[in-house]
Amino acid sequence: MNKMSQVNTKNTGVSVIGLGQMGSALVKAFLTKGYSTTVWNRSPEKAKDLVAQGAVYTPDVEEAVATNSLVVICVLDYQAVHEILDTVGSTLSNRTLVNLTNGTPEQARLLKERVTQLGVEYLDGGIMAVPSLITRSEAVLLYSGSQKAFEMHRQALDSLGTSKYLGTDSGLAALNDLALLSGMYGMFGGFIHSVALVRSEKVNATEFTSELLIPWLHAMMTTLPKMAQMIDSGDYKTKDANLEMQASLDTIGDVSRAQGISTELTDPIFSLMQRRVADGHGDDDFPSVIELLRQSTN
Amino acid sequence: MNKMSQVNTKNTGVSVIGLGQMGSALVKAFLTKGYSTTVWNRSPEKAKDLVAQGAVYTPDVEEAVATNSLVVICVLDYQAVHEILDTVGSTLSNRTLVNLTNGTPEQARLLKERVTQLGVEYLDGGIMAVPSLITRSEAVLLYSGSQKAFEMHRQALDSLGTSKYLGTDSGLAALNDLALLSGMYGMFGGFIHSVALVRSEKVNATEFTSELLIPWLHAMMTTLPKMAQMIDSGDYKTKDANLEMQASLDTIGDVSRAQGISTELTDPIFSLMQRRVADGHGDDDFPSVIELLRQSTN
Ligand SMILES: NC(=O)c1ccc[n+]([C@@H]2O[C@H](COP(=O)([O-])OP(=O)(O)OC[C@H]3O[C@@H](n4cnc5c(N)ncnc54)[C@H](OP(=O)(O)O)[C@@H]3O)[C@@H](O)[C@H]2O)c1
Ligand SMILES: NC(=O)c1ccc[n+]([C@@H]2O[C@H](COP(=O)([O-])OP(=O)(O)OC[C@H]3O[C@@H](n4cnc5c(N)ncnc54)[C@H](OP(=O)(O)O)[C@@H]3O)[C@@H](O)[C@H]2O)c1
Repeated sequence: MNKMSQVNTKNTGVSVIGLGQMGSALVKAFLTKGYSTTVWNRSPEKAKDLVAQGAVYTPDVEEAVATNSLVVICVLDYQAVHEILDTVGSTLSNRTLVNLTNGTPEQARLLKERVTQLGVEYLDGGIMAVPSLITRSEAVLLYSGSQKAFEMHRQALDSLGTSKYLGTDSGLAALNDLALLSGMYGMFGGFIHSVALVRSEKVNATEFTSELLIPWLHAMMTTLPKMAQMIDSGDYKTKDANLEMQASLDTIGDVSRAQGISTELTDPIFSLMQRRVADGHGDDDFPSVIELLRQSTN
Repeated sequence: MNKMSQVNTKNTGVSVIGLGQMGSALVKAFLTKGYSTTVWNRSPEKAKDLVAQGAVYTPDVEEAVATNSLVVICVLDYQAVHEILDTVGSTLSNRTLVNLTNGTPEQARLLKERVTQLGVEYLDGGIMAVPSLITRSEAVLLYSGSQKAFEMHRQALDSLGTSKYLGTDSGLAALNDLALLSGMYGMFGGFIHSVALVRSEKVNATEFTSELLIPWLHAMMTTLPKMAQMIDSGDYKTKDANLEMQASLDTIGDVSRAQGISTELTDPIFSLMQRRVADGHGDDDFPSVIELLRQSTN
C-alpha cells in the first residue's frame, strides 16, 4: 500500500477530481459548507478561481486522492475516469470514491468492480441538475452502490442538493438518471408538437405554454402514480377511457397533417395503442402499452 | 321564423342537448348553480336521474331548443350534431349555440357557417376534463367563436369549470384542445418509457414515479416558457447544452436496448435533434427542432 494512503480517514475534507462546469460547481458547494476541499484538474488553469475561494490545488492527482478519505470525481466520461485512476494506483485504497461522471449502468458496475479490488467503497451518482442549481434542494443527486459510503458521507453529499440513495447495485443511479431523462424528452417532445400545432394558426406559444399547457400538464401528471400502480401490479382494468376509445380516433394525427405539421412525434404512441388493441387488450387502461416496450430483442 | 323561437331571450335558463356521460355532468353543474335546465337526449331514459335532480325533460328537441336562449350541445360527434340540427330547423334562430362536442377545427368552422346563416351566435368549446371534474376549477373549458356569446353567457359557462376564451376563429378551441392532448401523450409516452427502463431492473414503478419522476418533471416544466419564447422569436441561441451536445450521445437508446426495452418512443426525438444538427443547427437550443415539424406536405 502506498504511503500516501495512510491519511486520517476521519477528516471532513473532500477531494474533487475534475473542474469542468459541473466539477467547479461541486467544489463551490463544498467550500460554502465549510469542507476543506482539495482539487485537481488536467488543465490547471481551471483551479484558479476556486483557489481564490479557498480550495487547495495540487498538480499531483495522487496527492489529491491521498489528502482526503472522500474523493469525488466528475469528468467528461468513463474513459477519462479510468485514465485518471490508472495514474493514481493503490493510493485510492480505503477511500470512498463518489463518481458523478455520466455513464451507463454497465460502466458503473465495471468501475465498481475495478476499485472494489483496491478496498475502495464505491458510490455511483447521477446529477439531475445543471451546475447553477447545485446546492439548491431542486438539484437531485441519485446515488447507488456502497450504502456504507453513502451513510458515512451523507452530510457532505447533502451540500450538493437533495440526495437520493437507490440501492446497492451501483448501476441503479445511471439507470434512474437515464429513465428521468427519457421522461423529460417525452414531455419536451409533447411540448414541441403541441406548440407546432397552435403556432400553425399563429397562436402565441409563450401564452399558450404558460396559460394552458403547463396547468394542463400539471393536472395530467396527477394521474401518473395510479398508472404506475397498474404497471407494478400488471392489472390494467379500467372504468374510464380504455385503449380502444383512445386509439380509435387519431384526431391529433389528422388535424396535425391538415395543419402541415409532421406527426413523427405523436405517431409512435398511437401506434403502440393501436397494436395493443389489435392484440386484444382494447379494454385495458393506457399504461398497458408498456407491455409492448418490453422485448428481449429490439 | 318558427313561433317557438319567440321566447324571452333574457331568461337565465339553459337547454342541454345530449345526456351522455359528459352532457349529464354539464346538466348537474347548471342545476347546482340554480339555472333552470331543460334537457333532451335521443334515448329518453338518460334524463331520469337528472329530472329527479330538477331538470325539465322534453321528448321534443325543437321544444328544448325553443325554451332557452342558451343551448348547449354535447353529443358523440359532429355527425350527431348535424343530424340533430336537421330536425331543429330555424327554431335555433337568435339563440346562442355552445357546442362542446369534440371535433376538428375544420368541423367547428363549418358548423359555425351553417348556424350563422340562421342568425345563431356560435361558440365552440373543448372540455379539458373528465365528467367527474366538471364544476371544479381544474376543469378547463376552452371557447372560441362568438365573443358576444361568450360574454353574454360567461356566468353560466363558469358553472362548468374555468372558462378560457381563445378568439373569434371558432376552430381555435378544437386546435388548442388537440394541442394539449398531444402534449399530454408526449408526457405519457415519456412516462411509459422511463418506467419500462427502471422496471427492467425490478425497481418499483410507483415509488420511482412519485419520488423521482414527478418532482423531476415539475422541475423540467419550468423550462418550457423560455423554450416557448425562443419559438415565438425564432431565436434559438443558447449558452447551455446545445443540440449538438444533446444529440451526440444517445445513451438513452443504447441503455434501453441493453435492458431489452424498445426505443420506439424515444427514437423520434433523437432523430429530430440529429437531423437538426446535420442541417447545421448544432449550436441551437433544443426548441429549434420545431422547425423540422413544420412542413407543407407530410
Ligand atoms: N454540465 C451539466 O449540466 C451536467 C449535468 C449533469 C451531469 N453532468 C456530467 O458531469 C460530468 C462533467 O460535466 P461538465 O459539465 O463538468 O463537463 P466539462 O465542463 O466539459 O468538463 C469536463 C471535465 O472532464 C475533464 N476531462 C476530460 N477528459 C479528460 C481526461 N482524459 N483526463 C482527465 N480529465 C479529463 C476536463 O478536464 P480539462 O479541463 O483538462 O479539459 C474537465 O475537467 C459529465 O459526465 C457530464 O455528463 C453534467
Ligand atoms: N367523457 C369524457 O371524458 C369527455 C371529455 C372531454 C370531451 N368529451 C366529449 O364530449 C362529447 C360527449 O361525450 P360523452 O362522454 O358524454 O359520450 P357518451 O357518454 O358516449 O354519450 C354520447 C351522447 O351522444 C348521443 N348521440 C350519439 N349519436 C347520436 C345521434 N346520432 N343523435 C343524437 N344523439 C346521439 C348519445 O345519445 P344516446 O344516449 O341516445 O346514445 C349520448 O347522449 C364527445 O364529443 C366527447 O368526445 C368527453
